[in-house]
Amino acid sequence: MAGYGTARQDHLRRLRRIEGQTRGLQRMVDDDKYCIDILTQVSAVTSALQSFALSLLEEHLAHCVAEATRNGGPEAQEKIKEASDAIGRLVRS
Amino acid sequence: MAGYGTARQDHLRRLRRIEGQTRGLQRMVDDDKYCIDILTQVSAVTSALQSFALSLLEEHLAHCVAEATRNGGPEAQEKIKEASDAIGRLVRS
Amino acid sequence: MAGYGTARQDHLRRLRRIEGQTRGLQRMVDDDKYCIDILTQVSAVTSALQSFALSLLEEHLAHCVAEATRNGGPEAQEKIKEASDAIGRLVRS
Amino acid sequence: MAGYGTARQDHLRRLRRIEGQTRGLQRMVDDDKYCIDILTQVSAVTSALQSFALSLLEEHLAHCVAEATRNGGPEAQEKIKEASDAIGRLVRS
Repeated sequence: MAGYGTARQDHLRRLRRIEGQTRGLQRMVDDDKYCIDILTQVSAVTSALQSFALSLLEEHLAHCVAEATRNGGPEAQEKIKEASDAIGRLVRS
Repeated sequence: MAGYGTARQDHLRRLRRIEGQTRGLQRMVDDDKYCIDILTQVSAVTSALQSFALSLLEEHLAHCVAEATRNGGPEAQEKIKEASDAIGRLVRS
Repeated sequence: MAGYGTARQDHLRRLRRIEGQTRGLQRMVDDDKYCIDILTQVSAVTSALQSFALSLLEEHLAHCVAEATRNGGPEAQEKIKEASDAIGRLVRS
Repeated sequence: MAGYGTARQDHLRRLRRIEGQTRGLQRMVDDDKYCIDILTQVSAVTSALQSFALSLLEEHLAHCVAEATRNGGPEAQEKIKEASDAIGRLVRS
């Protein structure tokens, strides 16, 4: 089971809310809403996605990476490199 | 009509794709997918949201802000300040 | 004169402070400071750079882009496209 | 010794280059350079800072966090939380 097993329902709840927010963006565009209001909503959705990603990352570090670290050997380094690359993509997206 | 009127269908298509991607994230969490793969998908959704926001912003600058600029007066400065604040939120989200 | 002429001294003061902060980072690394404290300082420097960029951008929109807009013609569209591309780089950096 | 001890000279070289880039920004403002060119340079400096931060973070995960993980107990969780918070600040700056 992935490291986020115990928090699965929280994550699903967040993602459903984010899905709802993206539908909300479609309604705003459909309803000819003012551009700035739509951009403000995009920033809110982006922040919600980042919060989801950061909590998933913390669980990954606490479970998958920690377990590989305790086991030692090359797998530990690979897990850390893999996590660092994912963090880099988050920082640059 | 908002500045993005002519590009409305493109925007709606992008947003529907982003909505689909957020449902995809839910399936990944439901299916116990590996954390790093989910994080990679979050970066893709965030980038898609940014592309949508940047194209909407360009239309806003080219229509709403440009029109206020041509009209002159305090409204022009307000529109520029408003756009700059929205850009700040995008940069920091 | 560039659009930021009147705010030049403010910009230079900000940039000198940022330069000082980067020297501060070097001292922290030299002094073997704790990684997390260094990372916290990097976030502060990044935010200071963004604030500088956003104020410069607002002046650019209010002067260079606004002037091209009033003059009309293809130059206006070019200035807006150019500004939008620069905003995209800021959002993604 | 901090986790980045072995890479100290690399880090210092990067930071000196970033310091030089911030002086370059001052010269651009002094010389009345075009706003967009300055904004492009700001994006380059921001990316250089992020690269430094990400490599420092990887070393922190591989040394400080890994050691705490091997030792086990509450310190391990604290280190992971601390690292996650620092990652959050980087993502949002």
